[in-house]
Amino acid sequence: MRALRFDGGEPAVVADHVLPARARGEARLALRLGGVCNTDLEIARGYMAFRGVLGHEFVATVLEADDPEWVGRRVVGEINCGCAACDVCATHGARHCPVRTVLGILGRDGAFAERFDLPLRNLHLVPAAVSDEAAVFVEPLAAACRILEQVGVAATSRVAVLGDGKLGALCAAVLATVAGRVTLIGRHPGRLPLPQNVVECAAAAAPARAFDLVIEATGSPQGLAQALALAAPLATVVLKTTCQAKHAVHLAPLVIDEITVVGSRCGPFDRALALLADGRIDPRPWIAARYPLAEGGAALAAAARPGALKVLIAGAAGS
Amino acid sequence: MRALRFDGGEPAVVADHVLPARARGEARLALRLGGVCNTDLEIARGYMAFRGVLGHEFVATVLEADDPEWVGRRVVGEINCGCAACDVCATHGARHCPVRTVLGILGRDGAFAERFDLPLRNLHLVPAAVSDEAAVFVEPLAAACRILEQVGVAATSRVAVLGDGKLGALCAAVLATVAGRVTLIGRHPGRLPLPQNVVECAAAAAPARAFDLVIEATGSPQGLAQALALAAPLATVVLKTTCQAKHAVHLAPLVIDEITVVGSRCGPFDRALALLADGRIDPRPWIAARYPLAEGGAALAAAARPGALKVLIAGAAGS
Repeated sequence: MRALRFDGGEPAVVADHVLPARARGEARLALRLGGVCNTDLEIARGYMAFRGVLGHEFVATVLEADDPEWVGRRVVGEINCGCAACDVCATHGARHCPVRTVLGILGRDGAFAERFDLPLRNLHLVPAAVSDEAAVFVEPLAAACRILEQVGVAATSRVAVLGDGKLGALCAAVLATVAGRVTLIGRHPGRLPLPQNVVECAAAAAPARAFDLVIEATGSPQGLAQALALAAPLATVVLKTTCQAKHAVHLAPLVIDEITVVGSRCGPFDRALALLADGRIDPRPWIAARYPLAEGGAALAAAARPGALKVLIAGAAGS
Repeated sequence: MRALRFDGGEPAVVADHVLPARARGEARLALRLGGVCNTDLEIARGYMAFRGVLGHEFVATVLEADDPEWVGRRVVGEINCGCAACDVCATHGARHCPVRTVLGILGRDGAFAERFDLPLRNLHLVPAAVSDEAAVFVEPLAAACRILEQVGVAATSRVAVLGDGKLGALCAAVLATVAGRVTLIGRHPGRLPLPQNVVECAAAAAPARAFDLVIEATGSPQGLAQALALAAPLATVVLKTTCQAKHAVHLAPLVIDEITVVGSRCGPFDRALALLADGRIDPRPWIAARYPLAEGGAALAAAARPGALKVLIAGAAGS
């Protein structure tokens, strides 16, 4: 079976990837469309020491499941697979289970394959109104929605998103559904269609110490220091970047200004699907290119270009 | 007039420090007892680029004030002096005023002097039940109480304080008034008398990823990384260390485990005074030594010794 693997060298499509028998509770899925995330690129640089099939953003068709009702349905899936038995799973769900696997990131082969498995309880049906090209954004859009679960945002909040890459733009669009105005700070102004109340700004022109909430989505180890410079006293910085490098940062200003830094990872799929279904967010103009799975290596290379928009990988089950 | 100054070289007592005329709204104070803080030592290493009279922990007698009711009273004082006119002062008080001065730290001569000035509105009367030796701890004790304003702590919270220096011990004692059990992690177990529900633990024996709340009070640029290692998923780390050096830290675990890091500085004097007045906290056993103001340089040197407890500087107004 064809799959895009990382085994320590260059990520490459192999033709002979072997899928083990489907375990009880797992659904077998056929890839319709996958999305390349910066985390995939970080993994290829050594992040998480992952080996195996890459990919965690997907829309797929259910091929097999314990419950036949699911077979043939179009789904997206939460990527954290918990034990469903420990205290953490009971209290906080699978995202923080200490023995979890994570699709294409930690101990579990990912979605950039003709077929792959994920627990049935992780799946969400995709409404008919949401196309494959929109649904493939659910995982990163849910990660953006996570911010609204963690931090209070009001219409009057002074909100900045630092980093105008794919995740930064999604965060800005989500926050703009609540805040009256969102400032998106990055290197590529004008590249993306954005909601009307998202105002783009070059980093050099961004006002210092002027925001109540700063989302750090740069993907860079310099991101936290830049975000702290934008934060007003008593502000909150939400840290989204996961990268392999260490951050070097003066933390005395964080103490003096009593800044709160909140790590933020995966979020609610239902909320993301609702935003897509009612058309409040349409990420499809952010798609840069689409490659067949057989050309997965080229897809990763395209996604790695500076300023690249979302690159998709199409499986055989796609429309 | 005698004062302990830092002018870029070694901090030293000068005999000819000139005190300007008292401004309207300010009280003139005579030092009874001052406490040496690690921040004083950091300032002598270049932190905050401060020049002038050191010292911000004190108990004093009011010599002059616009309101004669205050003259002769024994007081402690909040160290942040705001403009009392801006939006920040109106919303958050003086602590975060963008044009504030801070006693002995930023743009305002400090308390290690025969006489010094502070706005009358910053002063708090010391109850008769609180001795000078206890009252001199109010400023750092208030900083410890600040944690309870910022973070929810329950009887069942798994709480660790990292760093068993003076501030760490105060934080542990304050948290032990709320949490059922507090683990104090440091290099000097057994040095300090502590509340019964504060359990000391060597750093090497501290369980990883086991605490819901970790107070970082190491005074070291390695402190944040150590604190993150102790924090359970979704935990909160309160950062108390202000130091001149950069922290170098892998922040991916902060994002993955969705840790919240909260900068924490100055706190409520009334709460600290209440803890001392009702005897719930008695910091007097933590006093290592007491020097007359004339020997202020020796006091700083004593406070700089590794593991030093609280060093006091006695003014002429003291008992």
